[in-house]
Amino acid sequence: MTTNLFGWSDELWLLLDRLGILAGNLMFLFTLSAGVWGFLKRESIRRWFTLNRFPNVGAELDNAQYRDAIAFTVSHKELPLWVIRVSRPAHVGLIATADSKPAAREIAQHAEKQGIRVHGPVYIENPDDPAEALAQTRLILSRLREAGAHNIAVDITGGKTPMSLGGFMAAEEMGVSSLYVASRYDATLRKPDMSTAKIHCISKPE
Amino acid sequence: MTTNLFGWSDELWLLLDRLGILAGNLMFLFTLSAGVWGFLKRESIRRWFTLNRFPNVGAELDNAQYRDAIAFTVSHKELPLWVIRVSRPAHVGLIATADSKPAAREIAQHAEKQGIRVHGPVYIENPDDPAEALAQTRLILSRLREAGAHNIAVDITGGKTPMSLGGFMAAEEMGVSSLYVASRYDATLRKPDMSTAKIHCISKPE
Repeated sequence: MTTNLFGWSDELWLLLDRLGILAGNLMFLFTLSAGVWGFLKRESIRRWFTLNRFPNVGAELDNAQYRDAIAFTVSHKELPLWVIRVSRPAHVGLIATADSKPAAREIAQHAEKQGIRVHGPVYIENPDDPAEALAQTRLILSRLREAGAHNIAVDITGGKTPMSLGGFMAAEEMGVSSLYVASRYDATLRKPDMSTAKIHCISKPE
Repeated sequence: MTTNLFGWSDELWLLLDRLGILAGNLMFLFTLSAGVWGFLKRESIRRWFTLNRFPNVGAELDNAQYRDAIAFTVSHKELPLWVIRVSRPAHVGLIATADSKPAAREIAQHAEKQGIRVHGPVYIENPDDPAEALAQTRLILSRLREAGAHNIAVDITGGKTPMSLGGFMAAEEMGVSSLYVASRYDATLRKPDMSTAKIHCISKPE
């Protein structure tokens, strides 16, 4: 071969070749030191990757925002019934305990009368165990997805704190919003005053 | 140059060269198709990377397990005082509301009498806003880290659900364990029966 590519001289090609050699050497040094740095810092890199993050916390929601499906951790019937009335979901999922069985049944009856498909109730044996609430909420969320719901939320207002936390973790793991209904407690009637209720977004993963 | 590297023949070097060319072509096709696949699936890849995960939920803890520092979301004084007594931390952090100000002060006094360093109390204006609880708990956790504490936990038993959730999210974001004290409620005395209390681990990020 006597003609060079692009007609460039042998000298230019040699220069380019040698620059390529130097670039290769530098790249080797860079890769090697990045590897050593990554190995030494592996714990903090892993932590940085795996730490949970909550970028969208606490925005107030439009109460009437349309949703396909809402899953509830159930303690009393009042709050879920109010949420169902204002947001009119097509599907409802219920996570209850032995104590809240009657409330869950009443919610299911009311919802079915309005033509809403009810999934569950599933029951949690120990309301102090967040792992159980996490597992049962995941179960209900998969059923809602299988039933064709796309815009799903978990309302974690009801139940003891570990139950709400389990519901919240399931929502985060499955990429679903979590809601909380804040309302003033009416000390005379000893129940929440629903005229003051507002739906808050706890976290929105997407 | 007439002598080849390792004394291998020109034919062998040519064969290796051509194998290299084929490998380069295949690598190009592979990189290109991986790039196209990654671009088309970018949303689900992003979701898979960024979804929060909670691998260590709900294990029961040895009550006396040693910890440098515990941060509390405060509603009543009984539970934090019991936790301080059984786990003897060197530092305590307090996150309180206007309603729980007196309880937080009493906890601080008790702790200081036992030679425990108290950080805060910091106050949350709206106990229904998880974002505020998240921010204040982060603040307390950074102060505890600055004070030299390494083994830190957040006890999220006290406060309304959004406060506990905010505390939990701060713990997750900063790579710190979260605790919950489960106890039977004594209906006669109208306070928790501390003889039945157990510390549960809500989540352990590391």
